[in-house]
Amino acid sequence: MPKEHSDIGLIGLAVMGQNLALNIADHGFQISVYNRTTAKTDAFVEANPDTPGGLVGTATMEDFVKSLAKPRKVIILVQAGRATDAVIDGLIPLLDKDDIIIDGGNALWTDTIRREQELKAKGLRFIGSGVSGGEEGARFGPSLMPGGDKAAFKELAKIWKAIAAKVDKDTGKPLEGAEPGKPVKGGVPCTAYIGENGAGHYVKMVHNGIEYGDMQMICEAYDLMQGILGLKPKEMGEIFGEWNKGALDSFLIEITADILGQKDPASRKAFVDVVLDTAGQKGTGKWTSVNALNMGVAAPTIAESVFSRCLSAVKDERVAASKILKGPKKKKYTGAKKALIQAIHDALYCSKICSYAQGFQLMREAQNEYGWKLNFGQIAQIWRGGCIIRAGFLQKITEAFARDKKLANLLLDPYFNKTIQAAQENWRKVVALAAEHGIPAPTFASSLAYYDGYRSARLPANLLQAQRDYFGAHTYERVDQPRGKFYHVDWPQKDRPQLEA
Amino acid sequence: MPKEHSDIGLIGLAVMGQNLALNIADHGFQISVYNRTTAKTDAFVEANPDTPGGLVGTATMEDFVKSLAKPRKVIILVQAGRATDAVIDGLIPLLDKDDIIIDGGNALWTDTIRREQELKAKGLRFIGSGVSGGEEGARFGPSLMPGGDKAAFKELAKIWKAIAAKVDKDTGKPLEGAEPGKPVKGGVPCTAYIGENGAGHYVKMVHNGIEYGDMQMICEAYDLMQGILGLKPKEMGEIFGEWNKGALDSFLIEITADILGQKDPASRKAFVDVVLDTAGQKGTGKWTSVNALNMGVAAPTIAESVFSRCLSAVKDERVAASKILKGPKKKKYTGAKKALIQAIHDALYCSKICSYAQGFQLMREAQNEYGWKLNFGQIAQIWRGGCIIRAGFLQKITEAFARDKKLANLLLDPYFNKTIQAAQENWRKVVALAAEHGIPAPTFASSLAYYDGYRSARLPANLLQAQRDYFGAHTYERVDQPRGKFYHVDWPQKDRPQLEA
Repeated sequence: MPKEHSDIGLIGLAVMGQNLALNIADHGFQISVYNRTTAKTDAFVEANPDTPGGLVGTATMEDFVKSLAKPRKVIILVQAGRATDAVIDGLIPLLDKDDIIIDGGNALWTDTIRREQELKAKGLRFIGSGVSGGEEGARFGPSLMPGGDKAAFKELAKIWKAIAAKVDKDTGKPLEGAEPGKPVKGGVPCTAYIGENGAGHYVKMVHNGIEYGDMQMICEAYDLMQGILGLKPKEMGEIFGEWNKGALDSFLIEITADILGQKDPASRKAFVDVVLDTAGQKGTGKWTSVNALNMGVAAPTIAESVFSRCLSAVKDERVAASKILKGPKKKKYTGAKKALIQAIHDALYCSKICSYAQGFQLMREAQNEYGWKLNFGQIAQIWRGGCIIRAGFLQKITEAFARDKKLANLLLDPYFNKTIQAAQENWRKVVALAAEHGIPAPTFASSLAYYDGYRSARLPANLLQAQRDYFGAHTYERVDQPRGKFYHVDWPQKDRPQLEA
Repeated sequence: MPKEHSDIGLIGLAVMGQNLALNIADHGFQISVYNRTTAKTDAFVEANPDTPGGLVGTATMEDFVKSLAKPRKVIILVQAGRATDAVIDGLIPLLDKDDIIIDGGNALWTDTIRREQELKAKGLRFIGSGVSGGEEGARFGPSLMPGGDKAAFKELAKIWKAIAAKVDKDTGKPLEGAEPGKPVKGGVPCTAYIGENGAGHYVKMVHNGIEYGDMQMICEAYDLMQGILGLKPKEMGEIFGEWNKGALDSFLIEITADILGQKDPASRKAFVDVVLDTAGQKGTGKWTSVNALNMGVAAPTIAESVFSRCLSAVKDERVAASKILKGPKKKKYTGAKKALIQAIHDALYCSKICSYAQGFQLMREAQNEYGWKLNFGQIAQIWRGGCIIRAGFLQKITEAFARDKKLANLLLDPYFNKTIQAAQENWRKVVALAAEHGIPAPTFASSLAYYDGYRSARLPANLLQAQRDYFGAHTYERVDQPRGKFYHVDWPQKDRPQLEA
């Protein structure tokens, strides 16, 4: 017998919405569902008659809202942007004071800030929650990054914690074994209140930016192995499989091993060899890079990974160019194969550290800009399970912030510092080899330049600032005077740099 | 005796405005000027009583407008953004149909598009004109990039062509010798109608993005010479002076030589050594990078140069980090000094080609997006004189587009292709050395990765797209099927890639 009122409701029954609804129902919560197309709602409910909590199909938004226990909790999982606004506009007149709307889409965090303000003015509560982990994550345990009204999240927390991925409380390792109707028991849920208004969606965006970086780095490792060593997909799959047992242990390395090991049944070739080399993008990596530029925070690794996708997309241009533009004279790599594979491993790991360092610096700056109080160690832990960038590595980040809550940059943490010290000769060797062999490794090279730039007490920007003063009278500061005092040379009378505070 | 009505008027008497007004008056045009603070207007007019055309000071905007011949031409040179809108709002009720407003500030091109539309609806004509060359350029001959109402530009052209920098019609070399009141005679003016609505300001923005790249590349060359070879500023100044006589001949190389040769009178040290290594930025490099990301066009070199400025700005963080993060084991460069200096020269030139290639690809994409008809060869020629990136190099770009109007990428032009072929071993060596020696060279490395990526018929994005299909069901295309057919593997049943159009 269904309860008179459902515990929660969900609007938008595309794959993500369906899977999240089933996940919620699996955990014993009764959930009402609504989709613009009623047939889709009916089919979904009919196909899943025996969930522990129960699905309640509704044909109109009015019935949907009436079916919910107060304060009502409504999850929206529709396309980010206008579709989300349209659903919210439809809901507003039907909801009562203190009801809670939860946006689980990939919203731009500034939209979330705006929506939270608008709804608060109408007496409604709003939570913008990042949901990561793709379809599988939504179904069996996503990583959830809720931001917005803190009191509202308290009312949602029971459900959010139940459906989230779980990790071991000591090791941070994801707890496996989830099946439909048989949720994981115990463990720390991969969700926690992130911060006010848009904080959850902001952190989700940075997660995605980091994901762009991770994926591009793996591609560069793969490209270097096949380009310099001539390795075949199967062997590379085995190498990634090995890497997945060590410091690089992560979902993306795991699926890379899996992909590289697959045969394409149609052609009998290695599957990866029949896939066209044009990568799509849905915009969150771009948002992260644009935000980095707007805030003035260096995040070159993430931006390079976005630009790499752009370059991959102009396939016809590249094919035409490949016939005209020559690479270096054919180089033969004469070193040991095993040593180079290890060096590529190290280059990947060091670059990854830099990419995450950039992502956490973005969050630190956004925190200042928006007045959030982010718990960086906890954010890393939330990413340990359920989401695409889940990795053993994240535990090291949680530990780093446990050692020093105010850590200015991940690079400065003793563990990461020591790791890079031990691996940097290999990293440098790989960047050098890529350049000499004509294999593009933009994120490896950019990460290394970031590392070398960040550890430079003095960069050549003194010359740049002198140029700006020369042609634009932009003034400069001096190394022998306090900060904030600005000087200008009257360049037509060059031998007289003038002191003008 | 002043004429009853001035030929043109100018609002905003900061340095750029004053200098542009004097430049116009030098060419025999009578110009009315107006500034919010009347005292500033009076002082300016008083200090310049004997210009060939004559300056007419006005105390109110009403008097200013009344003083102009019809159709009135009003140049606005105030801060980009709200200040510009405020001046336009003040002008609208005072102007008559077909009067022309010219915005010479560094406006965001989308603002220019908006303003042009709004003013057209009111019967007024609008020109957004990029003005490049800093204070000196404005005074003695800037590079001018006007976009907007084409018929309106015809009325402005006489003045715009008169005041612009001039280059030799055959060699493209800037014609020097301008002095107050003694304009350059003859030559091709560095201005031409760029395109509709925001085209002029867009092209000016790309100019500035390219300028960011040029400046950062020079800094990297300087940093490598001092870091690997231990050269002193004076010697480096001489090297840049030499380079300025060859393929790198340009204003920025010239002033670099000049700067490096200067002594600081206060400390008796090399001037560049007392300048603090924190570079400011006013946003146009950022705009260019954000626009590249938004259009999906790879412009990594420009973005890296912006991020380099960001990193330079966190001086305290870097100084702290420099005490904790170690570089590579001290390497000694054992090769020939002269050869390395040549290699750095070549790395700079090749990287510069890539950076310009990216800038022109941006303009090509924007042209498609906004329906402009840009003349790329002419744009390069406009940049030959007056502006910050003026360089002999630009003549090669003009020639490249003369050879092939539809050139897809500068890299493909025979001259640039041949140049890179000849220099690429050196370029690769420098990127490798930078990595091994721990000297950040982000734009050199990024440009090389761009070159190697662009000439790759096949990039490793096949693996990336397979990953996206794996965790997000984003589908993939196949190398053995036509473009536009999308496939998906049902990964839980991995050995069965499915063909789903």
